[in-house]
This record gives sequence, structure tokens and C-alpha cells, in this order.
Amino acid sequence: MSTSVPLTIVVPVTAIPPSLADNTADLDRLKRAVVAALPPLLAQQSVHAPFISMAGLAARFRAADFKGWVLAQVLPERLELIDFLAEKPDRVLGVALDVGSTHLEASLINLLTGNVLARSEVLNRQVEYGTDILSRIHFADTHEGQNVLQQAVVSSINDLIRKLCQEAAVQPEEIFALTAAGNTTMVHLLLGLSPHHLCREPYIPLVNSPDPFLATEIGLRLHPQALLWLLPSRGSYFGGDLIAGILSVSLDQTEETAMLIDVGTNAEVVLGNHDWLIACAGAAGPALEGGVARMGMRAAPGAIEQVKIDRETWQLTWQSIGDLAPTGICGSGLIDLAAELYLAQIIDLRGKFQREIANQSAARQCFVQERLLERDDETVFVVADNVVVSQTDIDAMMRSKAAMYSILETICGQVGLGFSELTRIHVAGAFGKHINPRQAITLGMLPDLPLSIFQPAGNTALQGAEMLLLDYALWERCQHICRKITYVELNVNQEFMLRFSGSRFIPHTDPSRFPSVPHFR
Amino acid sequence: MSTSVPLTIVVPVTAIPPSLADNTADLDRLKRAVVAALPPLLAQQSVHAPFISMAGLAARFRAADFKGWVLAQVLPERLELIDFLAEKPDRVLGVALDVGSTHLEASLINLLTGNVLARSEVLNRQVEYGTDILSRIHFADTHEGQNVLQQAVVSSINDLIRKLCQEAAVQPEEIFALTAAGNTTMVHLLLGLSPHHLCREPYIPLVNSPDPFLATEIGLRLHPQALLWLLPSRGSYFGGDLIAGILSVSLDQTEETAMLIDVGTNAEVVLGNHDWLIACAGAAGPALEGGVARMGMRAAPGAIEQVKIDRETWQLTWQSIGDLAPTGICGSGLIDLAAELYLAQIIDLRGKFQREIANQSAARQCFVQERLLERDDETVFVVADNVVVSQTDIDAMMRSKAAMYSILETICGQVGLGFSELTRIHVAGAFGKHINPRQAITLGMLPDLPLSIFQPAGNTALQGAEMLLLDYALWERCQHICRKITYVELNVNQEFMLRFSGSRFIPHTDPSRFPSVPHFR
Repeated sequence: MSTSVPLTIVVPVTAIPPSLADNTADLDRLKRAVVAALPPLLAQQSVHAPFISMAGLAARFRAADFKGWVLAQVLPERLELIDFLAEKPDRVLGVALDVGSTHLEASLINLLTGNVLARSEVLNRQVEYGTDILSRIHFADTHEGQNVLQQAVVSSINDLIRKLCQEAAVQPEEIFALTAAGNTTMVHLLLGLSPHHLCREPYIPLVNSPDPFLATEIGLRLHPQALLWLLPSRGSYFGGDLIAGILSVSLDQTEETAMLIDVGTNAEVVLGNHDWLIACAGAAGPALEGGVARMGMRAAPGAIEQVKIDRETWQLTWQSIGDLAPTGICGSGLIDLAAELYLAQIIDLRGKFQREIANQSAARQCFVQERLLERDDETVFVVADNVVVSQTDIDAMMRSKAAMYSILETICGQVGLGFSELTRIHVAGAFGKHINPRQAITLGMLPDLPLSIFQPAGNTALQGAEMLLLDYALWERCQHICRKITYVELNVNQEFMLRFSGSRFIPHTDPSRFPSVPHFR
Repeated sequence: MSTSVPLTIVVPVTAIPPSLADNTADLDRLKRAVVAALPPLLAQQSVHAPFISMAGLAARFRAADFKGWVLAQVLPERLELIDFLAEKPDRVLGVALDVGSTHLEASLINLLTGNVLARSEVLNRQVEYGTDILSRIHFADTHEGQNVLQQAVVSSINDLIRKLCQEAAVQPEEIFALTAAGNTTMVHLLLGLSPHHLCREPYIPLVNSPDPFLATEIGLRLHPQALLWLLPSRGSYFGGDLIAGILSVSLDQTEETAMLIDVGTNAEVVLGNHDWLIACAGAAGPALEGGVARMGMRAAPGAIEQVKIDRETWQLTWQSIGDLAPTGICGSGLIDLAAELYLAQIIDLRGKFQREIANQSAARQCFVQERLLERDDETVFVVADNVVVSQTDIDAMMRSKAAMYSILETICGQVGLGFSELTRIHVAGAFGKHINPRQAITLGMLPDLPLSIFQPAGNTALQGAEMLLLDYALWERCQHICRKITYVELNVNQEFMLRFSGSRFIPHTDPSRFPSVPHFR
């Protein structure tokens, strides 16, 4: 283990037993011994004993003959003593949580060793009351809506914690710290705060950086003194999930300028290095995340994630996650499909299906006849037996890809940086894991850079939450990141709107920006 | 009002409303405005919003157009925001409490003005389970005893708070801070902590200086976020009531050496100045407090507080508190009586009743015949129709007076100080209010000093608690006093035992120490 201090610590204490010459009270004696044993990082902390712990601490300290281990919460400016143990415990548990709008993912970690004991995920029960963020914000405004949404996510988290505990054969009461990263709306709903203003100009959250509080206060079932640490948000459209992401790829500490792209409900992008950070977000996500396309789905088993159209034989092959019979198509599958359709000239540079092209082969004609059907007044493309993609779906994808590219252009433009100056583009989440950067470049969604620049970064929200669990110093670093970030509001950005228009072609109205694409044919 | 900062404060805040150019979250905006408005004493405090307050704070701040008043708890190292108010409130209430073993006394104070809105007292219901401290410590060791005693004092405090609120026509929910001073046993029982070790060598409390905590945690009915601040103890026999006493007479800040005497269950004495403090306590109290004499009672209406025996006419006159028919005799009455009996030679220098003396007058003989009766195998002196004092009572008083003088001698001896070097002796409580120092000197209970040296100091425990309520800086001063005090343990002090033997005569085995007494005849 490193020398970092986790959010809940175990401190070895030894005190000289009391005597007539030293009649310090038991609890004061304990505090004194704790202060003497603190690591340098915590030397300035004052030591408090909350009322609920007082009796047990003093009694057990005495019973153990004034020698043993203190369990304590590390808080800003102070240490809160929770318990006294005669023996050093094997484990002190913490949970890191990614509060996604659709799924919650979490890790159960032994804070003493840093070992991950279990990882799991559950559906966010809020989905019942609205699949997208905006519909939940509106639902929260209805009678009892806010309360219903809070209960939904809290009970989902409780389920998830139970799952983790079952998997690791431990009890929820052994969990002393919970770190959670979510977007600003998810955090408001979790806290029981109204998200009303989040989607209304000037887009002001009620809170960006809540102080840590008892997890039981919102109905979570952990140790009664477990604290909930929410990674701070920077604004309504830049949540703690992104701050966690910045932590996880150390964007705020790299010397060379890098970028983090996280495609969820929105496409959220951060650009920077150890000197500066700039961020923006825009609605590039839904089509990619599976929220818009009729057959769209999350990158989960059964989702088509890869499509290949052989332009000699006109054979279409696909790959589904887990090699299961396909039940839909995920964002990366849709991008793969669109790129292949474009390269095969089944869609044109506007993304529109085209039945006829000049000089087409009989094989293509046959392919088009089989796959391009009319259904419910619109053209759909048959990917597999049960999976079709409509013109509407492609249009949405086109808007998403245009938004994504315009966002990347705008954010780089803000600091006068060319794409070629980027050393690394971290692509978070399922999108980063499944996307084929070459296909995204073909569509003009990602800039035309060497493919090695694009690095899948995994669930960066969860990773950041895990890191915080194991390193109290990151709490202040998160606050510092929040203060440091310049946030560019795209909703009112004229430049962005112009760029967006230019990006609604494949790969772009200015094809010179994508010199590699002709070679992909 | 002075510039002191009460434990609960109201801070005026004004913030620039949010805009696209400044999208700071409401709560962060509020915190920023609070930081800007803090008085210098609090400039180092970090500002926290507890979970329970978060939603209300942010919503009301916005509703009031980002301008108004913040109600906050001042805590060590941090400020906890409770509420946001559009209008400045007229009052923010606090209660100061003296947790006596027999009676609880309290003041209701408007923290904004320092005005006392009500004062009241109730019986401590713990009396039901033992009149003296020791019997309660033993009762606490019985099954559920500790819990029963905690409930008893908590319900008494709730009664008292209700009384105060009725008197001032306010609600308990308006009370945000409670300061309480009590001896170490009372504090342990109030906290639900075992007092078992307090009366057992080496006399170690479980806690001397509890951190402030929510009053509701022990079942007190105030505002849900009201904090309970317990004045810290120095040891098992030196409680927060005495620390409050030191505050109230500023013993820790005077240039000239002074003394504080508090006679309760024990006689507790502090000697010192701004450089040093020394303290000790001993069992001098019960006989004086009304806990031992058969007809003894507290200095309450109906108690005989003054006795005069005219040695010419052999008429006895008495004065009762409130001029009521006498129902008993209080400590100061007993001292008055004993001094008069000694001067009239009804008791000898050992404190023993004497029927016959050499050369006595017929009037004395008649007086003795009427007043000195035999009852239940012992001699009693009839003070009034229903009030008699027995040889046992006088004996107890003699032990108490001997203990008191020996304590004062011992503590001065510890620092090599003569009584004549004292500039002031503050005498706390009912004892200080009712005692006639001349009579106490006659008995050899108090040293033979000019009468003006002795100053009644009132309920110093309550006064100290009141001061803390209005001045947060005193919290640190209390801790400092605790660290500064040298406590002399009399239970193991050989010198004290020798002095005690010498003091069991009236006025003393060495009458030269009391040159004034012959002149009192």
C-alpha cells in the first residue's frame, strides 16, 4: 500500500494507564494517544468523539488496558472517532459508486489493503419514472415526484450494496465509507434536492459540493456512522462523474495536454494539463448511448457492437456482445454500421439512405433490395433478423456525431489548440470500450488522428470514486479541480452552432480535415 | 452588545444573483457570502452545510433573491449553517443550565441581545434514586440504573425548558444552543456514561471534555439542530460547574491572587490568578447543604437562615427565608446557630452540648432546661417549634467546618501563600448568599480575615454557562483553564489529614489563628 490515507482509518494507539499522578479522563487519554499516532497528512486535524461513539470508545479503551486500535473517519479539519478495537481488524470496508442514470455500478473495497472484494451493478429504479434526465427533472416537479425519485435510487443503491456484500460474504454494517460519482441531476435527486433549475437558464445547481454526511440520513443501510462523500460537480452539466474521470486519468496532473471524452446522456469533454482545464458538454449522447435509436440499447449482452459489409461480396456480418442472438444495437454498433453504410454508399454524405447509385453492381442492388425496406412510412435498414435501423435513427446519429465533433472543435478552439497537439484522448465508458476509432473518424465524429491517440479509459466515474475512497487527499484535489476548470456553456455558444452545421456531413463539409478517410474505402 | 460571538449566530449575507457568467451553485454561493461576512474571530472557520439543512438553505436563499440572514452554529474549526431567513430575526434563543444534583437552574437568553428572558429551576428527578452523589453512582451500577438516571435528569431538563418557554412565551424549537455546567458525575449521568470509576481510585472519568453534540441525541426537546455544550471537567471531583465558576469570577484572569469557594455536595476550592490555578475538593458539604442534619434543608423558603441568642436576656430569635413558619434549618442557619451556641457556651470548643458551666446565670439555666432536651437517646437543641438540631447534627457540622478550613489551609499551603495575601474570596451559591462570614470565622470555618474579603458570588455555575452561551471564545478558554489547573487530590493528602484533626475545635486547636474571635463574644 502507498502512504495515502483512506477515508476511514485504523490508528494504533497505546497510552499509559491512568494513575493518581495522571488522572486524564479515558476519552481525553484516547484522543491524546490518537493525536500522537496520526500520520503527517493528518497532523493538523482536531480529534472529535461524536456523542454516539463516546461511551463505547471510553469503555472499550479501558477494557483493552489502554492499548489497541481506533477506527476513525477522516473529515475536513477533523478526525471523528468511531470505535475502539482491541485487535487490529482484517478489513475496513468502503464502497465506491457510479450513480448512472440507467445503471449503478459499485466496488466493495477493503480500505486497509486497497483490494477490491466485489464489483457489481444494478438498474437504477428511477428508469421507471423517465429514461432520460430531462424527463426525470420534470417528474421531480410533480407531486411527490422528487421523493419518489430519491427513494428509487436509494433502494437501488441498497440493493447493490447487498449484492456486493453477498458476493464478498460481509455485512453492510461493516461499510464505513461510500464515495459516489454521478451527474449533477443524479446527485440532486439522491440528496432529495429539487433539480428544477438545472435545466433552466442560467442552469444553477442547488449544490455543487455537498459536505460529507451520514449515509443513513438518506436511508442507505451501512454502518450507522458511515459517511457519504459525493464527488463535487462543477455545474449543472458537469457533474462529479466527470470530476472523478479527471482524477482517474490524472488529467489535472499531466504535463502534456490531453483530453477526456465521456459519452453518457451528454457528451462531456475535458481538455487540459497540470496548468489548466477546460470543459464543455453537449447533447451528443442519446443516439450513441442507445437512448434514441428505436432498436438502440446499452452496450450489454445481445447488443450488436460491430458490423462489417464486404463491398466485394456484399455480405453483411455482425458481432454481438457475448455472442448472443441480437436484441438491439448499441452506440458503437450504430457508429460501426453507419461507417460501413457510408463506405458502401448505402448512405450518402448527408447520412440519407440511397437505393440507387451510379454504376452499381447487381450484388449491391440485391443487397439493397433485401436490406432496405419501407416500414411505417420510413426506410429502415435490416441489420439482423430482429434488428433494424431507421432513417430517423441514422439522422439522430448524424446529429450526435456532428455535435461530438463540434464540441471537440469548440473546446480546442477556446484555447487555440489544434487536434494534432493532443497526445492522448481518453475515451471513457462503454463508448470508449466498444467504439472503433477508425469508424468514428470515417463518420467525422472523432478527429483524424493516429488511432493510438485514442485510449479506452473504462468507467472513469467509478475509478475516480474508488481512488477517493483510498486517498483522502483527493477530496481537496477534487475541490481544486472544480475551482480550476473553465466551463464553456455550449447552449449559448454561437461558434458551436456554426461548427455544428458544418459537421452534419460525412465526414465533414471540409473533407480536407479528414485526409485518412478516402484511404478507408 | 460587545463584539463577542455567541454560540449561535446570525450573519447578514448578500450575494450577486447567478447568471450564465457566474454559475456557482446556490449553496456554494451562500457559503461564499457567509465567509465574506464573518467576524474576524471566525475568519479561520470553514463553513459547512449539514445534510438536514441543505435543501432549505439553498431554496430559501434563492427565494429571498440571494439576500438575507444565515443562522449558524459556531463550532470548533467550523461553522454549521442551520437556516436562511429573509428577515433578521428578533431573537435567537439559548439556554444556560446548572445541572445540580438536587436542583436544576436555568436561564433563557436571547443570543442577539444578551437579554435574559426567563430564569427558573426544577427539582432533579434523580433525587428519587439517591439524594447524594455516591448513592447515585451505586444506583447507576444496578440493572438499568444508568439509563433510569439519564432519563430522570433529561426529563427534568425538558420540564425546566418548558417552564422557561412558558414564562417567556416562546417555543422550545426556537432554542438553538444549550450550555450546561455540572459536576463530573452529573455530566456522566446526563451523557448516559457509567460513573462507576469516578469514586474508585485512581478516580478517572470516562470523559472530561465532551465535544458539543446535538441536544436531541440525549432526548432533549429543542430545535433539532440545537447543540449541547458541556463545560469541561478537570477530573472526577472537579467538574464543569467549577470551570464555569472560574469563568464567572474571572479567576483565571485576575492579576491578584483570589479564591473561589463553592460548597455543594463537596466543598470545592480554587485558588489562583492569571498565571496559575490550583484546586482541590473535599467532603465538607453535606452538613452545610442540608443533606445531613435531620432537620437540615436547602436554603429555601421556610428554612431558618439566621439565629441570634441574646446572652443578657437569654432570648433566642430566628429568621426564616421568606418569613415563613420554619420547616427546617439551612446550612448557613446551622453555622449561625452553632456560632451563637458556642458564644453562649451551650456548646464547648469540641462542639459538644454542655448543660452546666461554671458560674452560670439562672437565665442560662432556664434557657438550657427549656431548649436542651433528650430525645431518642441523644441531646437535641430546640431552635423553633418544629426545628431541632441534635448533637449528631452539630458533630457533622463540626466535621464540615474542620474540612473546610483544612481544605483552605492545604490549598494555600501548596503554593506557600498565607491567607492574608488573598485579596478576594468569592463564595458561590446559596452558601455564599446566606452565610454570615463573621459567624463562620467564629467557628473557625473560614480564615480570620476582614469581612469585606468575602464576596457572595451567586450561582457561578449558571453564570459561567450563561457567559459561554454569549461568547464562543470562552469554549477555548474553558479548555485552557482545564489544562492550566493543578488539582490536589485530598483523599491521599497526609497534610490535609493532620490539618483536619487540628481544625476539629472551635475555632481551632491553635486559637492564635483567630485573633478576632475573642472580640466577638
